[in-house]
Amino acid sequence: MSLLVVGTVAFDAIETPFGKTDRIVGGAATYISWAASYFTKEINLVSVIGDDFPKEEIEALQKQGVGTEGLQVKTGQKSFFWSGKYHLDMNTRTTLATELNVLADFDPVVPEQCKTSDFLMLGNLTPQVQMRVIEQMKKRPRLIVLDTMNFWMDTQRDALDKVIKMVDVLTINDEEARQLSQEGSLVKAARKILKMGPRYLVIKKGENGALLFHENEVFFAPAIPLEEVYDPTGAGDTFAGGFIGHVAATKDISFDNMKRGIIFGSALASFCVEKFGIERIKNVSREDLDERVQEFIDLVQFDISLED
Amino acid sequence: MSLLVVGTVAFDAIETPFGKTDRIVGGAATYISWAASYFTKEINLVSVIGDDFPKEEIEALQKQGVGTEGLQVKTGQKSFFWSGKYHLDMNTRTTLATELNVLADFDPVVPEQCKTSDFLMLGNLTPQVQMRVIEQMKKRPRLIVLDTMNFWMDTQRDALDKVIKMVDVLTINDEEARQLSQEGSLVKAARKILKMGPRYLVIKKGENGALLFHENEVFFAPAIPLEEVYDPTGAGDTFAGGFIGHVAATKDISFDNMKRGIIFGSALASFCVEKFGIERIKNVSREDLDERVQEFIDLVQFDISLED
Repeated sequence: MSLLVVGTVAFDAIETPFGKTDRIVGGAATYISWAASYFTKEINLVSVIGDDFPKEEIEALQKQGVGTEGLQVKTGQKSFFWSGKYHLDMNTRTTLATELNVLADFDPVVPEQCKTSDFLMLGNLTPQVQMRVIEQMKKRPRLIVLDTMNFWMDTQRDALDKVIKMVDVLTINDEEARQLSQEGSLVKAARKILKMGPRYLVIKKGENGALLFHENEVFFAPAIPLEEVYDPTGAGDTFAGGFIGHVAATKDISFDNMKRGIIFGSALASFCVEKFGIERIKNVSREDLDERVQEFIDLVQFDISLED
Repeated sequence: MSLLVVGTVAFDAIETPFGKTDRIVGGAATYISWAASYFTKEINLVSVIGDDFPKEEIEALQKQGVGTEGLQVKTGQKSFFWSGKYHLDMNTRTTLATELNVLADFDPVVPEQCKTSDFLMLGNLTPQVQMRVIEQMKKRPRLIVLDTMNFWMDTQRDALDKVIKMVDVLTINDEEARQLSQEGSLVKAARKILKMGPRYLVIKKGENGALLFHENEVFFAPAIPLEEVYDPTGAGDTFAGGFIGHVAATKDISFDNMKRGIIFGSALASFCVEKFGIERIKNVSREDLDERVQEFIDLVQFDISLED
């Protein structure tokens, strides 16, 4: 019952109203793997890095139970690099630099023993690369989760539509849901997107929580109101990692269990933003997590009895 | 155990992406009274109108149990008029016209028998008028709720601070909370505002729900995801009316009961936006309301058991 994670392992340079970092470790698959590792130790990573990437960061992931046989290391090449600046409201950001480097001609290779993974998490990447991974699977995973972004909607819509058709869960933010569906109302957007292939749709709204749609059901999880958000980078990937990690660990793909996945994902994401990069998400204890989940329960709990 | 409602009774002309109205009935106290009337029939209204205001609208309120002895009718004068246009996202709007008319020299007079009301809801008005009402009360109400807006923060900050100091519950939106506290984080904003007088703070976030802060506790209610929002006008007042209506009807000012008030207020607000003006909020059946509250329960309900 293993989880296969595909996505970037990279460097980020981040500027927020609270400070600025040099090149630090980032990448969708890094955040996803760290988050998922709090739930299951059967994780395998498919990605690509240059030989500039710190060995100890890979070893730290391995210690968490993340298999890195599918992680290609390109000698003499540089890892993917992204640099961005968050605006005062912390909800919008400007990309300052994107250097594809090793990502430019990334051809993912799924290790033989991972081709029968039960759970597949496709982090944000070109739709073609995401498709190449699905094609290598020897049996259809029980659950495929796909994350994507507006950039691929703008530039690779056909390829994106194709891969969206093949997955079970799509995770995008509210603006992307509107763009993908051409609907202003998120309810209408969800209805349309659920006809495009995925049986589940997660709409991420940042500090305004997340919605899970499935058939005629909808579940909402707020974001924990935080004292301070230092760096939103990776929050969406951490959320996805916590979600798929919980679902894979429990081997239960019911709607009720996905709701729990959403809560665990939200809890982990609320840690992620407390420090720059992966610093906080590398050190979450079981007590930390339980405490944060209890905050979720307290935050939304109310008691109304309706007469029938 | 009566509820005294103070606020505008007015005309609005509204433009949204879905349509446009001529002069229709509006005003904070109108929405508040309608919403509260679904919970208690002991409501009294203090406001002012011109003789251009339709009699049948006042009679409709009276039929709902709203006493209008404190509603001044100024012969030969016009009612307050506001006109605004909502932008495509429905979250922001531009004011096209504000005609104070009877509101320009409004001196509220609280009828003798209302001076001992247990619950006082001060809808958005100049802080001076809100203060004049509090001063006329013969005994301190059990609960005073104050709604206000950024305009008074910009232009009447001293008077506003004074009246804020005298109330129990303050209701403002997220941007106003940031402006009032000069804090970016809503958690920090809430902590600061709770030191300014009110023991409870409600932060309204429109389609992103509402937060209730009290001491170290916080409660969050989402907004029901809706197919379509036709007109957000009055949603905040309807929310406040449902909140205070429930609290006044149950005579219970505990935090747990306020949570229920938030849910009832949110449910009524979700009806309000379905049609223009007060059209929908004038016709909510008990079944409608119960059904909507059940949607709230289903929307946020999840089941996680933490090991202790």
